[in-house]
Amino acid sequence: MPATPALPPVLSRIDAELPAALERLMALLRIPSISTDPAHAADCDAAADWLVGDLAGLGLDASKRPTPGHPMVVAHGGPEAGPHLLFYGHYDVQPVDPLELWTRPPFDPAVEETATGQVIRGRGAADDKGQFMTFVEAMRAWVAVHGALPFRVTVFLEGEEESGSPSLIPFLRANAAELTADLAMICDTGMFDRETPAITTMLRGLVGEEVVVHAASRDLHSGMYGGIAQNPIRVLARILASLHDDQGRVTLPGFYEGVEELPPAVAAQWEELGFDTTGFLGAVGLARPAGEAGRSGLEMIWSRPTCEINGISGGYAGAGFKTVLPAEARAKVSFRLVGRQDPAAVRAAFRAHVERMLPPDCRVEFHPHGASPASVMAIDAPAFEAAREALSDEWPRPAAFIGSGGSIPVAGYFKTELGMDSMLIGFGRDDDALHSPNEKYDLEAFHKGIRSWARILDALAPG
Amino acid sequence: MPATPALPPVLSRIDAELPAALERLMALLRIPSISTDPAHAADCDAAADWLVGDLAGLGLDASKRPTPGHPMVVAHGGPEAGPHLLFYGHYDVQPVDPLELWTRPPFDPAVEETATGQVIRGRGAADDKGQFMTFVEAMRAWVAVHGALPFRVTVFLEGEEESGSPSLIPFLRANAAELTADLAMICDTGMFDRETPAITTMLRGLVGEEVVVHAASRDLHSGMYGGIAQNPIRVLARILASLHDDQGRVTLPGFYEGVEELPPAVAAQWEELGFDTTGFLGAVGLARPAGEAGRSGLEMIWSRPTCEINGISGGYAGAGFKTVLPAEARAKVSFRLVGRQDPAAVRAAFRAHVERMLPPDCRVEFHPHGASPASVMAIDAPAFEAAREALSDEWPRPAAFIGSGGSIPVAGYFKTELGMDSMLIGFGRDDDALHSPNEKYDLEAFHKGIRSWARILDALAPG
Repeated sequence: MPATPALPPVLSRIDAELPAALERLMALLRIPSISTDPAHAADCDAAADWLVGDLAGLGLDASKRPTPGHPMVVAHGGPEAGPHLLFYGHYDVQPVDPLELWTRPPFDPAVEETATGQVIRGRGAADDKGQFMTFVEAMRAWVAVHGALPFRVTVFLEGEEESGSPSLIPFLRANAAELTADLAMICDTGMFDRETPAITTMLRGLVGEEVVVHAASRDLHSGMYGGIAQNPIRVLARILASLHDDQGRVTLPGFYEGVEELPPAVAAQWEELGFDTTGFLGAVGLARPAGEAGRSGLEMIWSRPTCEINGISGGYAGAGFKTVLPAEARAKVSFRLVGRQDPAAVRAAFRAHVERMLPPDCRVEFHPHGASPASVMAIDAPAFEAAREALSDEWPRPAAFIGSGGSIPVAGYFKTELGMDSMLIGFGRDDDALHSPNEKYDLEAFHKGIRSWARILDALAPG
Repeated sequence: MPATPALPPVLSRIDAELPAALERLMALLRIPSISTDPAHAADCDAAADWLVGDLAGLGLDASKRPTPGHPMVVAHGGPEAGPHLLFYGHYDVQPVDPLELWTRPPFDPAVEETATGQVIRGRGAADDKGQFMTFVEAMRAWVAVHGALPFRVTVFLEGEEESGSPSLIPFLRANAAELTADLAMICDTGMFDRETPAITTMLRGLVGEEVVVHAASRDLHSGMYGGIAQNPIRVLARILASLHDDQGRVTLPGFYEGVEELPPAVAAQWEELGFDTTGFLGAVGLARPAGEAGRSGLEMIWSRPTCEINGISGGYAGAGFKTVLPAEARAKVSFRLVGRQDPAAVRAAFRAHVERMLPPDCRVEFHPHGASPASVMAIDAPAFEAAREALSDEWPRPAAFIGSGGSIPVAGYFKTELGMDSMLIGFGRDDDALHSPNEKYDLEAFHKGIRSWARILDALAPG
């Protein structure tokens, strides 16, 4: 679907107004809206106020909405008829420690020259203020040129994303009618590579479980009890070792229920991406994919479920040696879920397996840590292909529907709470230093990101 | 072999002089000779001086011998002809923390009434000052009655036992001619139960090994890398789980080389001891022996080798959850050895097994922590049976040759450095609170311990 005549003047305005757009982003970046730190509560509030003013300034009906935590910002605009899209971002940022590793004050942002081009340096530049301002600026340019948005839009900005979004589900439930759109656009992800834009359409889910194996009522001396008493570390090691077979598949009964093969079109796109498995692993000192036999690198990280041990502890871990038989040993185990895998069923299968393997004199304790299903977007909805083509027009290489190994909880909540699919489009790059000192967002990402959203607005406008 | 007429007057004197013996022990207990604490170095020296004086007072040629650490005390006496026995003990004591749990100042000892009789309460009462003073007091009584010891005696008291005995091996080597006797008598162990004295004739050896499995060059996020990157915790769990088979036997090739079945006479004695496996395990909240199938409880803790995991760590172990794939995972593994098992061969077999099981992209690092062979005394030497009968005469139940699941390093060093077997005889009880607050030694143990040594002096005297 080619661009309409409505688009070129908007792109021109975006190019001409880039310095002003950048100034607005800088103003927002100067507000230290660290959501995890109570000392910055007023800053979070100030960021929300700034955004309400900015969104109202481009003609949206914007308001700050209180929650038990930091406020939400909600803004509506555009015609009542036609499609309704919700645009999501978050205005809170990560803490800045360790401050001494920053090359400039994290809340005194600036454009810097680097070997790979100009970057906007500062906390929140990429995560997520710079990202969501791309769609805000695209809307501003569209409204400036055409007087109104091309369809109904809701902007929904959260202030607790870096704190686990405690107010999000209650807010979605309390405001379901207002927030439920035909589709959510989430701008908090990255490109596939520097030249290839991406729409993330598959997000793995996650089930976390802590397992504690108890044996004796107290720590024992292995001189006295070694050989006769159950050793919970040994029991735990046997259990953990039994979770995978020799082919790298998870052994829990029923684990693969709901796991589907990739649609052929997506498989073909992934193939074309030419993912450099060797380079990806080589960057962290590894050489060979360690997942299921017969699966590609991208399948292993995007479309196949996993079971990982994220932590283990038991007995003496200090310097030297202590011949102790501990009373307990514990592990944190997580499952990345795909397709229609049921988090509750996976957790139940894990617990049943552990109980089955438990020898006499041991008991086990489980602590659940989160459960979210995978998100698989209905990419046969025409908006997905339209957005993909719009992105492909802006960037050197065609856009791809990709997966994400990690979870993006808000996409799951939009689905479970509002029944709404999400299109995850972002312009982040691997070297953006999210959550780290010297966070940056490429100026090119900001500029072409704004242009990309203008193209998407055009592509999704009713004909 | 019945007691000789030389014995009864010695026993009478011991009974009559018990208050004086107790006063001497109290004087020694008041010296806070904590070897691990540099602040108490002068106290260790004072304890050595006190002992030199005390041993000289009973007619021995006693001297304080410097080492790079705390001094040794060596004393010689008795006729040149006949057997030569070396008596070992240690005058240093454990630290007293946590001090607030003591019911009296740890270095202000006193006799207290308890439900199970009178006890000598104070740090070092049982470990080891009260114990070794039993043989010193027996010698004193013998000399007082008969004018001289019945055979050649060397008393050898160490001041670094609670600090890992760093000076012991060099001192044994430098003074081998002086210290090598026909047999060493070590008074630092316990009774089998309150009524049954014991001679410990089998001590398990120990090989400690720390294994570190490395994978990626840094910690990874399991959202990004889960499923494609090696997880060192999972690798380690597989390795550790492979160390035992379903029958509880250690799977390392060659591990059981040098492991022998019990001599029938010892097996019969152990049988007669009526070891309460259920009670032993029940005291720590367990019910079923978890060692090799088909072995008795005493075999599991005394005469069978083991492999234990004493500590494990890797990834995130704090509160909550972190979806990390760690760069490394580590475990501390120990082997208790019996019979003629070779510590070096066991370590080599373990390392080879780990290397064999290591998948691509992982490397392993090993840190050795100690290696000592098992000690198996030649109990067919007549002195063993003579001492056993002497002990049986003193206590309600016959003495037994028993094993010890733990290592007593000095017995191993006497064997490896001086070629000398040891007879381990002590009167400690399970509730003595060694290394803990409120350490005590039963007054009965002290009194009957002195009498026991007098009987042993009599039994081992040349006819």
